[in-house]
Amino acid sequence: MRTGREREKERLFDMHGGDVYRNHAVYDASVNLNPLGMPEAVKQILRESVDGWARYPDPCCQELVYAIGRYYKGERQESFPSEQILCGNGAADLIFQLTAALKPKRALVTAPGFSEYERALRAAGCEVRRCLLEAERGFAPDFSELVKLAGDAELVFFCNPNNPTGILSERPAVKQLAEACMEAGAALVVDECFMELSDDPEGCSAVPLLSQFPNLMVLKAFTKTYAMAGLRLGFLLCGDPDVKTRMEGLRQPWTVSVPAQLAGIAALEQEEYLQEGRGLIQAERKRLFRGLSGLGLTVFPSRANYLLFSVPEEDKDLGARLRAEGVLIRDCENFNGLEKGFYRICVGLPEQNRLLLEKMKGALRR
Amino acid sequence: MRTGREREKERLFDMHGGDVYRNHAVYDASVNLNPLGMPEAVKQILRESVDGWARYPDPCCQELVYAIGRYYKGERQESFPSEQILCGNGAADLIFQLTAALKPKRALVTAPGFSEYERALRAAGCEVRRCLLEAERGFAPDFSELVKLAGDAELVFFCNPNNPTGILSERPAVKQLAEACMEAGAALVVDECFMELSDDPEGCSAVPLLSQFPNLMVLKAFTKTYAMAGLRLGFLLCGDPDVKTRMEGLRQPWTVSVPAQLAGIAALEQEEYLQEGRGLIQAERKRLFRGLSGLGLTVFPSRANYLLFSVPEEDKDLGARLRAEGVLIRDCENFNGLEKGFYRICVGLPEQNRLLLEKMKGALRR
Repeated sequence: MRTGREREKERLFDMHGGDVYRNHAVYDASVNLNPLGMPEAVKQILRESVDGWARYPDPCCQELVYAIGRYYKGERQESFPSEQILCGNGAADLIFQLTAALKPKRALVTAPGFSEYERALRAAGCEVRRCLLEAERGFAPDFSELVKLAGDAELVFFCNPNNPTGILSERPAVKQLAEACMEAGAALVVDECFMELSDDPEGCSAVPLLSQFPNLMVLKAFTKTYAMAGLRLGFLLCGDPDVKTRMEGLRQPWTVSVPAQLAGIAALEQEEYLQEGRGLIQAERKRLFRGLSGLGLTVFPSRANYLLFSVPEEDKDLGARLRAEGVLIRDCENFNGLEKGFYRICVGLPEQNRLLLEKMKGALRR
Repeated sequence: MRTGREREKERLFDMHGGDVYRNHAVYDASVNLNPLGMPEAVKQILRESVDGWARYPDPCCQELVYAIGRYYKGERQESFPSEQILCGNGAADLIFQLTAALKPKRALVTAPGFSEYERALRAAGCEVRRCLLEAERGFAPDFSELVKLAGDAELVFFCNPNNPTGILSERPAVKQLAEACMEAGAALVVDECFMELSDDPEGCSAVPLLSQFPNLMVLKAFTKTYAMAGLRLGFLLCGDPDVKTRMEGLRQPWTVSVPAQLAGIAALEQEEYLQEGRGLIQAERKRLFRGLSGLGLTVFPSRANYLLFSVPEEDKDLGARLRAEGVLIRDCENFNGLEKGFYRICVGLPEQNRLLLEKMKGALRR
């Protein structure tokens, strides 16, 4: 017995894709998870530890924070400092805590980009400016423009690789942006939620810059990397430990559940799984790229685990037609800077990608 | 390799009890969970559903919200309305979202009371006044004083049964407070996180008042009722659906994890478990009351699943001495309105309570 208000809410929440709760889905390509699924070792830890979930979680996430610190140790560091690592109930949770703590007056985001940055900024009463990424440039960011606009901002969100475009920016470019932000007195959040599944985390991650830029923060998510979106776990690496303290002051102590903490610790040991996932994504992304191009669609270059494409006028309702076939893809109409006719798909397992291409072939009008 | 800052943080977070992560504990009586532990049916659902936790949680918590609505159906209602039920990552999560959404200028709490109300209110920039509960009255609230002070507040937190005192207030008294708040234009949050484990949820819960008071909210937690603190799940029943909408606007969409949603749905069916838990708590609380009194301690009357007591001067370090023995009790020194020498214990299983009394007997100086 749903009210009109409820249905409105469902539409609202449907905007991120992944709504397998109100759609019967054979295959959900609308969310960008590691195609290998949750690592078996993580599942096992979860099943075996249920008896221990009655007790409160450790508010400090001590063991998990140490594990993350060891994982991101630098060349000259034993470990990334614990007081600069803040875990949260998913990366999106941290975005809202960060904007609430920093309370910026003016912020900069890219368009298209992840919509929760703007939601969180507006919730904190912040004015948002957008740096438009142009389809003509394959949505590659114009760093000289970004640097210019950053001069007027107090907080900049930069997603690398960007969602939904899949464009991966190299570290020197990100460093240039961090420098511009530092000069302008702005904080820079580099959202690397998809970095570990991209083609070159080593060469592109901003983590090695954290020791030089106290204004820099890097956001990471277990959600996508280890396919554990249902468990909610993300973390923020802060150049300045004061940011962590301020964010902790605005939230409850028990933010991260016991299962999420245990799963996170186990996941960080899955190095082979990650390499296998990356290899699979690169091979399958090529196949999907060729397949979509072969269907006459405009596919944008991506170095991440997802692909953005656009369809011709007569196929703008592709998403609805595929949904009727039990396949969900991400309609990008509600991304600022995109319009009806842009879609994003996740790179899946070979059989999933075959199914997706086959269903798309059947659904396209020409 | 912990820094001074880290140790400081641990002390900070230790203030709620339950720190089994940095203390070897044989028995933890410092947190107030259902002594029966997490229901077996809930554990089973959790173990069996792990494969499904890769996907994002339902942001609407649709099935869980319907289950809660059915559970709290009124005499003339099919179901408590979905648009007035908001789930969160534990009740404490909702306290912070509520203060951030309502942004009150002046608020009223009781002292002693749960410290997260004040933390959340101060984080929202609110001035906090305290209504002192007096030991001489056995910490029973003075409703005429509360009603008077509420007249000057924009938001009032009232915990029933109160934590850490265990005092359970009857519905007519709570209704009087709700009326005073309504007249004053103040919102009233009745925190009933321990209500389901108290002696008289039927007679004392404010839920039946919600249809008359749009300024009223009732906060509930699965945490304590079903001993699932590690999973994080609480919810707010709002007299006014607008409150839900405003809170949702300030937070990420995926607040409640998949396992928490599934566990919540399963837990609500555990009526026998709850009755058994309540019976056990009443019997064992009597035993503990007599035992503590017999040790010469001042024990305060409680109708909840925990007991507050005070120790004489020479035993003020009782908590530390018990900790050395592997038993954790809640030092209430950091509750406003209490001082060193007040402790709270949870009512546990018979063997746990026996152990606790035995260890206390050994630890007391006289």
